[in-house]
Amino acid sequence: MGESRQKRLIALLSGPDRRGIVAELSGWIYRHGGNIIHADQHRDREEGIFFQRIEWDGGSEDLHAEAGAFQAHASTLGMRVRVALPDHDPVFAILVSRYPHCFHDLVQRWRTNEFQCRLACVISNHETVRPDCEHYGLPFHYVPVSAENRDEAESRQIEILRAVKPDFVVMARYMQVLSENFLGRLGVPVINIHHSFLPAFVGGKPYHQAHSRGVKLIGATAHYATAVLDDGPIIHQDVVRVSHRHGVRDLIRKGRDLEKIVLSQAVAWQLEHRILVYGRKTVVFD
Amino acid sequence: MGESRQKRLIALLSGPDRRGIVAELSGWIYRHGGNIIHADQHRDREEGIFFQRIEWDGGSEDLHAEAGAFQAHASTLGMRVRVALPDHDPVFAILVSRYPHCFHDLVQRWRTNEFQCRLACVISNHETVRPDCEHYGLPFHYVPVSAENRDEAESRQIEILRAVKPDFVVMARYMQVLSENFLGRLGVPVINIHHSFLPAFVGGKPYHQAHSRGVKLIGATAHYATAVLDDGPIIHQDVVRVSHRHGVRDLIRKGRDLEKIVLSQAVAWQLEHRILVYGRKTVVFD
Amino acid sequence: MGESRQKRLIALLSGPDRRGIVAELSGWIYRHGGNIIHADQHRDREEGIFFQRIEWDGGSEDLHAEAGAFQAHASTLGMRVRVALPDHDPVFAILVSRYPHCFHDLVQRWRTNEFQCRLACVISNHETVRPDCEHYGLPFHYVPVSAENRDEAESRQIEILRAVKPDFVVMARYMQVLSENFLGRLGVPVINIHHSFLPAFVGGKPYHQAHSRGVKLIGATAHYATAVLDDGPIIHQDVVRVSHRHGVRDLIRKGRDLEKIVLSQAVAWQLEHRILVYGRKTVVFD
Amino acid sequence: MGESRQKRLIALLSGPDRRGIVAELSGWIYRHGGNIIHADQHRDREEGIFFQRIEWDGGSEDLHAEAGAFQAHASTLGMRVRVALPDHDPVFAILVSRYPHCFHDLVQRWRTNEFQCRLACVISNHETVRPDCEHYGLPFHYVPVSAENRDEAESRQIEILRAVKPDFVVMARYMQVLSENFLGRLGVPVINIHHSFLPAFVGGKPYHQAHSRGVKLIGATAHYATAVLDDGPIIHQDVVRVSHRHGVRDLIRKGRDLEKIVLSQAVAWQLEHRILVYGRKTVVFD
Repeated sequence: MGESRQKRLIALLSGPDRRGIVAELSGWIYRHGGNIIHADQHRDREEGIFFQRIEWDGGSEDLHAEAGAFQAHASTLGMRVRVALPDHDPVFAILVSRYPHCFHDLVQRWRTNEFQCRLACVISNHETVRPDCEHYGLPFHYVPVSAENRDEAESRQIEILRAVKPDFVVMARYMQVLSENFLGRLGVPVINIHHSFLPAFVGGKPYHQAHSRGVKLIGATAHYATAVLDDGPIIHQDVVRVSHRHGVRDLIRKGRDLEKIVLSQAVAWQLEHRILVYGRKTVVFD
Repeated sequence: MGESRQKRLIALLSGPDRRGIVAELSGWIYRHGGNIIHADQHRDREEGIFFQRIEWDGGSEDLHAEAGAFQAHASTLGMRVRVALPDHDPVFAILVSRYPHCFHDLVQRWRTNEFQCRLACVISNHETVRPDCEHYGLPFHYVPVSAENRDEAESRQIEILRAVKPDFVVMARYMQVLSENFLGRLGVPVINIHHSFLPAFVGGKPYHQAHSRGVKLIGATAHYATAVLDDGPIIHQDVVRVSHRHGVRDLIRKGRDLEKIVLSQAVAWQLEHRILVYGRKTVVFD
Repeated sequence: MGESRQKRLIALLSGPDRRGIVAELSGWIYRHGGNIIHADQHRDREEGIFFQRIEWDGGSEDLHAEAGAFQAHASTLGMRVRVALPDHDPVFAILVSRYPHCFHDLVQRWRTNEFQCRLACVISNHETVRPDCEHYGLPFHYVPVSAENRDEAESRQIEILRAVKPDFVVMARYMQVLSENFLGRLGVPVINIHHSFLPAFVGGKPYHQAHSRGVKLIGATAHYATAVLDDGPIIHQDVVRVSHRHGVRDLIRKGRDLEKIVLSQAVAWQLEHRILVYGRKTVVFD
Repeated sequence: MGESRQKRLIALLSGPDRRGIVAELSGWIYRHGGNIIHADQHRDREEGIFFQRIEWDGGSEDLHAEAGAFQAHASTLGMRVRVALPDHDPVFAILVSRYPHCFHDLVQRWRTNEFQCRLACVISNHETVRPDCEHYGLPFHYVPVSAENRDEAESRQIEILRAVKPDFVVMARYMQVLSENFLGRLGVPVINIHHSFLPAFVGGKPYHQAHSRGVKLIGATAHYATAVLDDGPIIHQDVVRVSHRHGVRDLIRKGRDLEKIVLSQAVAWQLEHRILVYGRKTVVFD
């Protein structure tokens, strides 16, 4: 790390696969005096799509100009590209309801500088975490949501979020479904976490269903939110073992620990610009 | 182990929970000169069912009589009970189709005495594993199955299986669904293995579906076969991590390794009389 | 749970194995009107030791008297026994140095009632977590430790701890070795957490050593503290996968997450009276 | 896969890191009409070493010439490089003693074409696996080893191995230490598997030691053999959970399963040219 981090650029690219693309992009960086530190790439051969993440130490004084020029060059090759600059720490906001375990886990990582970012604000439909937010110096916004006021509440949330210009938003056990309209107006990725089981269960009280079916594993999945519930591109998944000795309460407790681990890993990858989405899938350059 | 194994009895019990049942059963064994080596128990408090596995060194010369008397006594308490005797190694048979990985895994464990049992015979709707069976000295039966001859084929299988009196049957990647009629006539448990995913996929080519959905974990589930496909009581489950780097072939290969591990563990527990089934669930005293 | 929890007794027993012991203990509870809810037992056959954990709903109005009578009876069988009563929530204290991740993890579990206990106080040789303790309403004691004042500091710690009468103490990344004298005077178990590697590394900077050796797994071990560093009976262990892509910083970060999970699991088992120690080993009835 | 596999070249490179190296190598392939399919790279920033694995579809008719030219070019950049050609399936040989579980696991993978390779021969200091080798059509060589004849035995082994020109050798639970002289004369990598524990145990009967110490995890490590026992560069590691319920026999059984999985994964990576060794470490491009 150290000094060089001041000059570090990170590009995430995707686009039509073609011969020579790696040589083309690395050649551009070399000719402009840059030094590639990491590069990872992937090809979806069936779809003919090329993906790449490149970290390099910029070759010029004006990194904004260098990023822009790289972006312009990659675009001529048909690539979609985002470049992250070292003078901008990613900004995110948290949506949370009444179960605060994921909220606390994320906040502690932010407070202890495990996450290099700015945690801009917390929005909740409950007052539960207000005292903790105040202790941590985190702006807290209480936005109650009901069947009647949903549109209004979403507008209020959009207003709050736009004011802090987040790079992404995290649903840390936010128990409301976000509308397609909300996601469209927000315009930045939203990361969500949900439990998942083998086999899957539809309907309410999934831990009760899992228990009555005698599953031996319970899982959690972090994914990007879409208007269709739990159907967004998967970022990360993990499971934990359970047995007949575990009651519904144990399943819920073990599920909570898993949700923390899986969600915080997904957020870490998002902060480090490691995730590319295409169709219903992700490429995670971990 | 050693000498005492000659006198070892193992009981699996289940029935209505009632106060004093542990004292009653352990008292019976004590009064009859037995010595409890292991005992494990479980209560389903919602259903009011009691489950127990007891291993003890018999207190008498005639272990068959002792087992019978214990069984009779437990029955008066309303318990269903099976008692395994040390002079009977469990017997099982294998059903296999064209993918032999689970077959080979089970057979090597049997050959190297990891499984204390008698592997009575192998039935297949393909000739693939015949030469290996012959090398290992395993009776091999080729029973081709088609849409037209299914009933006939099942009758032939029942005939072969009845002749060897198996304690249970293992579907080691046997790609045919067994009819309710078959399972009823067979009258002993059938253990099956199938892949499982988060989320679950219906329809054919599940690994292709999992790949196109970008799952980060693939799983395998061992369960008791029922007439409803993949719906039987779950015995064991495990998962393995995958990423965008893994193509469909990799998923299938990793799935195979997982199937071997999960199925052989389920068979080991069956051989050691560790599994009790109730409703759609199992209690596994591991 | 619910009503019956008011009457729940939990006994942990160990002692010389003998025929009939299970019948004897369960018979005693039955005759005294109790109802066994869970019972788990283990035999170390080589050492001839019997271990048991029994949870039962007491049969009398005076649970203290019932616990005492059970204890007296078990003693006549040569067993060491502790009985936990429903009107006493376990009490513990935390020792912490400068790395607060385990401290925060434990405190959040306590705050959200995942741990049923009283967290009596926090002692640290740094001021780092004082503001958080004040926010959470946790008594905080700053006891600086140096080579010169170690005896004095330990006496001060003993004084603080004795005042709160803890059932056990947790070293949540407390970076000082506790003397044999301290452990003896304290007289209650102390749970510690440390990293562990395959192969093991001696000397300082173990994560640097692990990195330079190219290990593919890093681990954490929770154990009871003894005067010999990291040599106490193991309660729990887990590992996480690493690769050449991970630098020393990544190893440390992954190690921290692992330490939280492993330590909090060990504390949960301690709170639920699930751990028996004998010699250098534990029996964990999970 | 399919047609293009006929033209697939795989290079493994390592050498001093320098600016522009990625551009240089990918540019060379592009100019020679090749098409990069996968590329993975790593930098050890402290040591200043660059590592890369490149798979590409060759741009010429004469792939041998193209591989040679690439190798010559990379050498001018100070890189050490090996290039694998599509018309050469890797060749390996197995050394095995009396425990055949790893032998059987590897052989089944080879028989079912999971491993694309030629299994040239099997050498053993016991006759145990001879009948299986004969059944599988595998050349079997019995080379007894004792304290007296060790040099002679190693010479005989070298003679047998040289005749089949292996790309590498696998010690599938071969219980003899290979001398530095043997490894030097052999001149190709030797992959070994051993158990590993947290904490580590020195001396004989490690499973007995692990059991008496009450470990909660047992592990296995695949590494390259060096003259110093179990000290070679680590390729892969994994662990499995155990408890007080498991006796020494269970630990050994679970250890066997783990050894199979860990060794076969290491062999798969070797076959796919995914491993680079430097100093006491490996880079595994998985």
